Amino acid sequence: MKWKRSERLVDMTYYLLEHPHQLIPLTYFSELYQSAKSSISEDLTIVKETFEEKGIGLLMTVPGAAGGVKYIPKMSEAEVRLVIQDLKAELEHSDRLLPGGYLFMTDLLGNPDLINRVGKVFASAFADQQIDVIMTVATKGISIAHAIARHLNVPVVVVRRDSKVTEGSTVSINYVSGSSRRIQTMVLSKRSMKSGQRVLITDDFMKVGGTMNGMKNLLEEFDCQLAGIAVLVEAEHADETLVDDYYSLVKLHEVNEKDRTIALSEGNYFSKRGHDK
Amino acid sequence: MKWKRSERLVDMTYYLLEHPHQLIPLTYFSELYQSAKSSISEDLTIVKETFEEKGIGLLMTVPGAAGGVKYIPKMSEAEVRLVIQDLKAELEHSDRLLPGGYLFMTDLLGNPDLINRVGKVFASAFADQQIDVIMTVATKGISIAHAIARHLNVPVVVVRRDSKVTEGSTVSINYVSGSSRRIQTMVLSKRSMKSGQRVLITDDFMKVGGTMNGMKNLLEEFDCQLAGIAVLVEAEHADETLVDDYYSLVKLHEVNEKDRTIALSEGNYFSKRGHDK
Repeated sequence: MKWKRSERLVDMTYYLLEHPHQLIPLTYFSELYQSAKSSISEDLTIVKETFEEKGIGLLMTVPGAAGGVKYIPKMSEAEVRLVIQDLKAELEHSDRLLPGGYLFMTDLLGNPDLINRVGKVFASAFADQQIDVIMTVATKGISIAHAIARHLNVPVVVVRRDSKVTEGSTVSINYVSGSSRRIQTMVLSKRSMKSGQRVLITDDFMKVGGTMNGMKNLLEEFDCQLAGIAVLVEAEHADETLVDDYYSLVKLHEVNEKDRTIALSEGNYFSKRGHDK
Repeated sequence: MKWKRSERLVDMTYYLLEHPHQLIPLTYFSELYQSAKSSISEDLTIVKETFEEKGIGLLMTVPGAAGGVKYIPKMSEAEVRLVIQDLKAELEHSDRLLPGGYLFMTDLLGNPDLINRVGKVFASAFADQQIDVIMTVATKGISIAHAIARHLNVPVVVVRRDSKVTEGSTVSINYVSGSSRRIQTMVLSKRSMKSGQRVLITDDFMKVGGTMNGMKNLLEEFDCQLAGIAVLVEAEHADETLVDDYYSLVKLHEVNEKDRTIALSEGNYFSKRGHDK
């Protein structure tokens, strides 16, 4: 059966979106659709222009015999601003206030559409870097880690507080939590990472950065490298921050339990992006 | 700017894939693309036919003033068989054997492409039912829960073993774990669910079904209804299973630690599908 261009465009768009950061040889499409490579190239030009026009992402063409095409999810700046705006608007509700000045965020971390967009925001920031693994700590960062991972096409590893038999042999470290200054433990399955891998660390919330710093130390035990840090919400505090090179989407300045107000601003995403470029 | 059909098809495909199980009015597309509704209808017919031909999913058209179009992710039977095959092939490796007859599965649960496909398999099975929430228990089921949730466009709630201050007020139950017969605790934030919601429960592994049964009991505390159970791997056992109405992709029959062999078969997915239809 020979495919029409219109059908090829729909199916190709689906296939590319399902395989981000993967090089797909033109022969894959030309054989699948029984079409000449020149037709496939024309199709891909249409896809590329639409993806770029609409801020869906980039379509990179690699020329030559071993070449092909690669979809790189990249959000437009306007859409990133929208994600941050939506997050801020959600977090500002006074009914999120919990005793002790904490914010209830669990529902946002369970919202698949919002978290998918957050994942694409961070995947956009790290699209040009070599990332081999996304690391997070159980439980709240897992949905963000998977959303980033899907857009970068790399695996997720989850650090735990306790060792479980189903993890096999593990590597464990002790670290000092940032705010409470207590000694805590982190455990990661030995099979999780290979030495030399570049790891992006993510979590839902960061104050002083003790947990992030713990994960950084754990990376060293695996001879892995820190490729970056991505945080949904960072909180202002008086102490020295333990990690300095991170992206955040929202910054929490103050929680006033008496007036029931929450003061938030945009995180460092855009200022850091400008600096990194 | 007026859009060409080819560009509309690419952008429309992207938009529909990003908004599963959501009714999109035709006016949304006709205004966005500055095109007549009749042209949009023709575009959607092409998308619909390609989606169905390629086993991507269904495109449902709802006629009338309040109507529109809805993308329902649905995997073809052939592709579901491929997912199950891939899972089985992965799980059969003898280096997955852990002391005590456990299987190492953590890497599979962290593989974004595999888990995305698993999510679509289960979302296909429940595509015609009203599902309001996906529920799982920390930590290993979370990636599966989110993958299903993204395809069904519903939120995820995560049951925990312990109560945390960031969860706000919680509901807690005690239950008897299936295999070890120990009393265990489950905790869920009060804000997670509203009464009357229909909940799909999921987890990575099920033996006797104690954890699943615990989650079922927790549902009752919220006046919610069980809509279904989805398990990646079920294990054969001699005791009576505590839940009976579930889908599984793979069944683990026996682990022989001495010979280092793992006996697996296809789960009940297809037999139950045939029965439910």
